[in-house]
Amino acid sequence: MPVDSLRVISDLQALRALTADEHGAQRIAWSPTWLKARAWFQSKLNDLPVEHHYDTAGNSWTTLRGDSDRALILGSHLDSVPNGGWLDGCLGVLAAFEVLRSFAEEFHGRPPITIRLVDWADEEGARFGRSLFGSSAFAGTHTIEADRNRVDRDGVRLEDALRQCGIEIEGIGQASAERANATAYLELHIEQGPVLEAMRIPLGVVLGTKGVERHAIIFHGQEAHSGSTPMGVRRDALAAAAKLALEIRPIARKHPDAVATMGSVKTFPGIVTAVVGRCEVTLDMRDLNAGVLASMLAEARAASERFAAEEGCTVEWSKIWSIEPIPFDVRLIEFCDESVRETTGVSHRLPSGPLHDAAEVARAGIPTVMMFTQSLAGLSHNKAEDTKIEDLKAAVQAFDRLARKTSSWLSTAEVKS
Amino acid sequence: MPVDSLRVISDLQALRALTADEHGAQRIAWSPTWLKARAWFQSKLNDLPVEHHYDTAGNSWTTLRGDSDRALILGSHLDSVPNGGWLDGCLGVLAAFEVLRSFAEEFHGRPPITIRLVDWADEEGARFGRSLFGSSAFAGTHTIEADRNRVDRDGVRLEDALRQCGIEIEGIGQASAERANATAYLELHIEQGPVLEAMRIPLGVVLGTKGVERHAIIFHGQEAHSGSTPMGVRRDALAAAAKLALEIRPIARKHPDAVATMGSVKTFPGIVTAVVGRCEVTLDMRDLNAGVLASMLAEARAASERFAAEEGCTVEWSKIWSIEPIPFDVRLIEFCDESVRETTGVSHRLPSGPLHDAAEVARAGIPTVMMFTQSLAGLSHNKAEDTKIEDLKAAVQAFDRLARKTSSWLSTAEVKS
Repeated sequence: MPVDSLRVISDLQALRALTADEHGAQRIAWSPTWLKARAWFQSKLNDLPVEHHYDTAGNSWTTLRGDSDRALILGSHLDSVPNGGWLDGCLGVLAAFEVLRSFAEEFHGRPPITIRLVDWADEEGARFGRSLFGSSAFAGTHTIEADRNRVDRDGVRLEDALRQCGIEIEGIGQASAERANATAYLELHIEQGPVLEAMRIPLGVVLGTKGVERHAIIFHGQEAHSGSTPMGVRRDALAAAAKLALEIRPIARKHPDAVATMGSVKTFPGIVTAVVGRCEVTLDMRDLNAGVLASMLAEARAASERFAAEEGCTVEWSKIWSIEPIPFDVRLIEFCDESVRETTGVSHRLPSGPLHDAAEVARAGIPTVMMFTQSLAGLSHNKAEDTKIEDLKAAVQAFDRLARKTSSWLSTAEVKS
Repeated sequence: MPVDSLRVISDLQALRALTADEHGAQRIAWSPTWLKARAWFQSKLNDLPVEHHYDTAGNSWTTLRGDSDRALILGSHLDSVPNGGWLDGCLGVLAAFEVLRSFAEEFHGRPPITIRLVDWADEEGARFGRSLFGSSAFAGTHTIEADRNRVDRDGVRLEDALRQCGIEIEGIGQASAERANATAYLELHIEQGPVLEAMRIPLGVVLGTKGVERHAIIFHGQEAHSGSTPMGVRRDALAAAAKLALEIRPIARKHPDAVATMGSVKTFPGIVTAVVGRCEVTLDMRDLNAGVLASMLAEARAASERFAAEEGCTVEWSKIWSIEPIPFDVRLIEFCDESVRETTGVSHRLPSGPLHDAAEVARAGIPTVMMFTQSLAGLSHNKAEDTKIEDLKAAVQAFDRLARKTSSWLSTAEVKS
């Protein structure tokens, strides 16, 4: 039984009709609309020979038992950002659902290995600022203490929002029990970037998620009157920051996939009649190679100190957040590449700049790979997010191929479980 | 009778004791503390053969009638910014007062020409954002319509604050009547900048006030995800703005006294994970030469368009405010230079970056000059504002010489009144 890719598209359209308004998708995790999306999904399981349960972190598990307990996990997330798109997350869940259904039909309800579908809880972190909530609980990397006191913008505590959905925050670590027998994890997602579109390639193979170094940088100069202070005696904190804003670009461009972004600049006193005395900026650098990322960070830091000295300023750095690069499984990358190539005739391997649940699964030591579909105009987290229908159809076909290659490998190979 | 410069310093100290708190001077125009300062000043007139009145814009006029109606005006302002210094404005008023007293004594109450002292109302514009209030009413450049609806941060309307001080906003234009017989205007002020200190020169001659071009500039690029958007496809509005922040400096440095300042930068969305889609900056350029100022503005505009094009952005400019350069009187500049040189042995001519009441008087066609005293560390609008006592003493001596040279010239020359 081949997969029915048109059924995935009509499922996506049905979900949009159910959970989007004129501003886009509204499936914010822990909200009534999200719960409605999950109930809708669960109702689709009725005719299938599967078991369903929620784990202690709110992840939704659908299991098709096979001859072997070894489990191939397919997954993504149904939750969205506010005013989100119709594909981000739910494409992966509904494509995985079609693949699971295809396995159930082909093997009359009993495939050689166990196939599991997971809808991770709160990938986006849109309401409480804590992304990858469910997958990090699964991976054992979640720190309850750091998240216990998070509140949404109405002052509702994360802990209380979870309880309303039947989740006790103290128990979320027990979601790691779902790792038992997990032997591989596959995730289909839209790219959310412009790379594949620019190359005119429908589908890509994700090499891993880039490491991220995220820092706050403050340049201290001397506030001065814009009219009475000659150019030669100024200690202009903005000038030092502007030099850094430009210098991070050649630093990143030395490496093919690296990115460096100054996303925020704040000037103090920030008035038209004063030389900037203090300039606060943010820096976000990413690469798949930890060594490259470390050298970029060191170069940026050295440049900031050089520019501060040139401008009679001082500079201080403080880390906002960082995460190491998470490479995906070499064997699964090959399977994914073959599957894409067999489906569309052409493939491309690229790292993911954004993080995904797959990164948490890989961190837990489970062989993992992701497949990307092309995004139009690189848009995401926006109701304008879109992908060509032909590319969505190809994605479902290629993801099914990937699942079958992986299943065959898990059925026969000496895979450590 | 030589002037008593120590009396000026003790008057300044008395005023500070009366109107400053631990944060600095609090003589904000139209406030009770400002009214107290003015009452204190008026009480000092009791033993002098002078007339005193407030004009319809709240300027305080003290007149020592002479044989001729031709009037030499000496002035500055008693109002201060919040948490201001002990010299800004009031040095000029109290030095002028000492000079007026010296004329009264020397000529037994009847000098050859009329000597007038003016304390301008609301030079700083600290409360309502409208600086040079009283002097622009005197000069006839004040636009009531533009100012009628100004409010302070507590929501009090300018019109109502004026009324509480006995001023009807409809009538302020009648302050132009004070221009009758005005034949010269002299003002002593602290430099509020670092130029004289760097040259180790106590007193300077002000050539005029620089013209100002003040603009808001918006670069429009494309907001994009900092993780998924390759460096090569970005349209980074901050990059274009950073190039301009650096480019305005060589543009200004081509000219000896020109300055150019980017005082405010705002980034949108302004978050660590997004390439800047829109960057709003301010530009303030100043020079004493109108042609230089115009060419600087044209160069900055051309550079902004070049940088926008390089970064795949667009740029739009809107004028915040501008004023032409206001040169002071050539003859009075020579008198001022002689007076400074005779007092301290050395002089320096420089333009003023900040505006002053003297600029409005000059705009009204009255021959005008200012004298600057050195400021320590260029600090002003701050309780740390200071000037060496020996320099203050020299300033009073030199300002008295300037008034006498000007008076002699007005007494004998063919001066158009």
